[in-house]
Amino acid sequence: MVDASDVLSLCKRRGYLWPAYEIYGGVAGMYDYGPLGIGLKNNIIEVWRNAYTLGEGFIEIDGPTIGPEMVFKASGHVDEFSDAIVSCRGCQESYRADHMITDYHPNPDSLSKEEMHSLMLKNDVKCPECGGELTPPEEFNLMFRTTIGPGSGRVGYLRPETAQGIFVNYIPFYRYMREKLPFGVIQIGRGYRNEISPRQGMIRLREFNMMEAELFVDPEDKSWDAFEDIKDEILNLVPQDGEELKMSVSEAVEKGIIAHQTIAYFMWFTSEFLKMVGVDPERMRFRQHLSSEMAHYACDCWDAEALLSYGWTELVGIADRGSWDLSRHIEYSKADMTAFKRFDESKEIEREVIKPKFGLLGPEFKAKSAKIGKALEEMTPSNAEEPITVEVDGENIVIDPKFFEVATVKEKVSGDKFIPHVIEPSHGLDRILFTVMEHAFTKKEDGYIVLKLKPEVAPIKVGLFPLMSRDGLEEKAMEVDEDLRLSGISTYYDDSGSIGRRYARMDEIGTPWCITVDYETLENGTVTIRDRDTAEQVRIHTDDVPEVVGALLYGLEFNDIGEMLEGE
Amino acid sequence: MVDASDVLSLCKRRGYLWPAYEIYGGVAGMYDYGPLGIGLKNNIIEVWRNAYTLGEGFIEIDGPTIGPEMVFKASGHVDEFSDAIVSCRGCQESYRADHMITDYHPNPDSLSKEEMHSLMLKNDVKCPECGGELTPPEEFNLMFRTTIGPGSGRVGYLRPETAQGIFVNYIPFYRYMREKLPFGVIQIGRGYRNEISPRQGMIRLREFNMMEAELFVDPEDKSWDAFEDIKDEILNLVPQDGEELKMSVSEAVEKGIIAHQTIAYFMWFTSEFLKMVGVDPERMRFRQHLSSEMAHYACDCWDAEALLSYGWTELVGIADRGSWDLSRHIEYSKADMTAFKRFDESKEIEREVIKPKFGLLGPEFKAKSAKIGKALEEMTPSNAEEPITVEVDGENIVIDPKFFEVATVKEKVSGDKFIPHVIEPSHGLDRILFTVMEHAFTKKEDGYIVLKLKPEVAPIKVGLFPLMSRDGLEEKAMEVDEDLRLSGISTYYDDSGSIGRRYARMDEIGTPWCITVDYETLENGTVTIRDRDTAEQVRIHTDDVPEVVGALLYGLEFNDIGEMLEGE
Repeated sequence: MVDASDVLSLCKRRGYLWPAYEIYGGVAGMYDYGPLGIGLKNNIIEVWRNAYTLGEGFIEIDGPTIGPEMVFKASGHVDEFSDAIVSCRGCQESYRADHMITDYHPNPDSLSKEEMHSLMLKNDVKCPECGGELTPPEEFNLMFRTTIGPGSGRVGYLRPETAQGIFVNYIPFYRYMREKLPFGVIQIGRGYRNEISPRQGMIRLREFNMMEAELFVDPEDKSWDAFEDIKDEILNLVPQDGEELKMSVSEAVEKGIIAHQTIAYFMWFTSEFLKMVGVDPERMRFRQHLSSEMAHYACDCWDAEALLSYGWTELVGIADRGSWDLSRHIEYSKADMTAFKRFDESKEIEREVIKPKFGLLGPEFKAKSAKIGKALEEMTPSNAEEPITVEVDGENIVIDPKFFEVATVKEKVSGDKFIPHVIEPSHGLDRILFTVMEHAFTKKEDGYIVLKLKPEVAPIKVGLFPLMSRDGLEEKAMEVDEDLRLSGISTYYDDSGSIGRRYARMDEIGTPWCITVDYETLENGTVTIRDRDTAEQVRIHTDDVPEVVGALLYGLEFNDIGEMLEGE
Repeated sequence: MVDASDVLSLCKRRGYLWPAYEIYGGVAGMYDYGPLGIGLKNNIIEVWRNAYTLGEGFIEIDGPTIGPEMVFKASGHVDEFSDAIVSCRGCQESYRADHMITDYHPNPDSLSKEEMHSLMLKNDVKCPECGGELTPPEEFNLMFRTTIGPGSGRVGYLRPETAQGIFVNYIPFYRYMREKLPFGVIQIGRGYRNEISPRQGMIRLREFNMMEAELFVDPEDKSWDAFEDIKDEILNLVPQDGEELKMSVSEAVEKGIIAHQTIAYFMWFTSEFLKMVGVDPERMRFRQHLSSEMAHYACDCWDAEALLSYGWTELVGIADRGSWDLSRHIEYSKADMTAFKRFDESKEIEREVIKPKFGLLGPEFKAKSAKIGKALEEMTPSNAEEPITVEVDGENIVIDPKFFEVATVKEKVSGDKFIPHVIEPSHGLDRILFTVMEHAFTKKEDGYIVLKLKPEVAPIKVGLFPLMSRDGLEEKAMEVDEDLRLSGISTYYDDSGSIGRRYARMDEIGTPWCITVDYETLENGTVTIRDRDTAEQVRIHTDDVPEVVGALLYGLEFNDIGEMLEGE
């Protein structure tokens, strides 16, 4: 069994990633992506972005990471985005309250602060550092807070998710998409969560990378056109009230296990994406949120989980958020964040209106009567028997029912305004990347490590070696290296140590192919190309190198290289 | 002459970019990149990243945007990264002090706080909003401040530049590059600057995008191998003590105008990059920093400037930062951030050492004498005549010179440790993007806008139109559209309005080519492809579409399409 520490140790040793700010003692929950890590990360992003934009026609946005307080009041994060914290009265160290009582409850983060506290008292829980007394649990907001502008300025927060930057821009998107639903928007970038005490390496970070997609749909139509093409695909499901099972997406929708086609389609889409970048399908499943863990506004929510050495871990959350987000931003901003649905044919509807009796208003209110009449007309009637208060020129005036009547009028309307619903696949990029590393990690008994990354995502595609650093082999190898780089293929040139050691270095970082320039190259222009996973080798001509590597990247089997070249 | 407001208006109208958080009244100095803007931005990044990594062998890192206080103490930002601010005693509004005195001094931001204040008093400067009295100028630190972790936690800042994230990781990079200089590291990402009152659209942002490269070199060798290949290239230079002139890079280095080959090479490299993404070479120059504006540690510094409607504007700074950054981080972290240079052959050097007289120490200091002797041996001698204070088991003991002698010993050393120097090309990505937009913007007398973006960076490569929305033209057009998208080419499908209007929409957003599916397509499978800049059209077969567009993207002239297809 792979251990996360083996993977993290490889990551650090070979330049995938390492804890940030190590020369200053580090900051928990922050990592640097090194040269190889960023290659892998960018490749995963590229697969994802292309799948959503070129594949599904989603558009992309890139907004600021700092937002003004109002945005996160509307989103609920100012009030709700918190963990319960306890501190030691002795050494002042702070802890997540649920972490203190894991031995006494199967699911401590589902407890209220009061429940946690009584469990702590009952079990006499003390500070793990110094044995001191702990404070009762309090809410600790997990957003990083800052100030925008000078002086006491404006309160701002680092975004806890990229999604809000999409929601607040619903209006320009709706216009950009020519006012047609459904449409989808993605955003890729940093998210921030000021964890109390981050643990578990790349799984729980204070600063992390997200890939979020928000699909705006008609609440009355959550079908999905392309569902038909994938309806027989099988997913590993763990429904909220049952055991793990394998089931086709169409059966799951028909049985009401998955709420509707759109969620089901994006679950399948997510599983394809995860497989494509190298998450092992045998260690992947979709777990439905329990009613108790689902946000109160969510209609349905599934986590794509991967089995890691840490246990089953959420990589992607796929939720139907209903109209929650847009409704809240409408409430806080007063902006018109609706869509308009034209009826097949325009409808006649009946509507109640207030009709002022101008003949009575005039004598009573004199010069003000016109304004009062207009104000009455603009109001929605509630109860025809009661006085109405109108505001005219800053003055509140109570109008007795005798001055107006409530009448029913008929109107022709061509359509309806409504607030779209949002379906959200939200991806934790760092977790996905770490899963890809752990699932690719293999170690033989003698300690030899091969990182079996998919070629599409491997940061280095080709290791390039001159057999010896003399006799012109180096110049030749550098030429081949340059040919590859100029055709956009990343390489690693290595001329030190035995060929075996150079292979080992490339196997350890997941480079799918190695090319060696040897004395035969000088005679007939051929080089050997070696396959990482089988260690097989074939000789090909230097002129064919970029084309062969290109074909391998597009899925050519290593064994078919000869056939491909003969076929030309 | 183009006006920035025309460009910003196009940007907003068509989804390139717009002020962020508009439904909440906006936040000055923050923008959203919309669907087209992010396409353009990603394409510019890709050109830059490939030039530095595949082209020059630089490695990449991606670190956190939040850093602990110590990092920015070491970098000097806690003490120095500030603007002078004044506030109104009446309405409390804040202003940059130098903005208040632009009428009274040609270069107000070069003044000290005291000089600014006396100029304000002399000219009786009042609050521009309410006419109230202004406070004297004070320093306002421009970093966004936050707290890492719970409680009073640890002070953290949002990075004002990405560079520090590279410097603090010098040690793993040096190891990754197998301890050889020179090597270069790039980082692409957010920078933050809490401006007092941001103006000028995309030019001065509170949250911006940077692309920085840090090249670590041997201080004694600032030559550059590839300089020979580009030595006759001509740049527009504005040296610190002279007029604008055109000069070859080799002449500029020989005459001492540019400090050395490495700076000169990266100035040329920068100019090539800027031209490649669409900055007009006629509106680009390199201005050398005046001695007064150069950081005290910089050996030489040049800004790549572009002429915008705002005037000449810095896009890229290219500086020799000497050993400043690494020295400071060594001082603050005590980490060994040096490089080792092996001599051609090992040298014998003479060195002064302290030799304790153990025979005298023993009787005087008894049990402590061994430790005192050892402590003396580890010290570097300064003056053999004076007592030395050593620390032993926490106690400071003064040792009289009679207890030791200073002797000269010979040693063989194989090399030298030294602190590398850093050459930094630092790019403001948002400014580059805005320059690309402004330089591409053309408007005819009748108001018709063509955005002449380079095809490599245009967010949409092909507009795809069915002539009519019937008779199967739509299905055919969608097929061609999908073919293009699946070969990785971004398209915009448009079936509404006249063909002329659809061309106009694509011209305005800079789409280089449009393809129309018409009735002839149904007969013989050909479509028209139209060139944005010449409005010329040719017919090509649908089967050839992805190949033709691919070739155009790689530089094929539109007029040579026919020839290319015949040649097959």
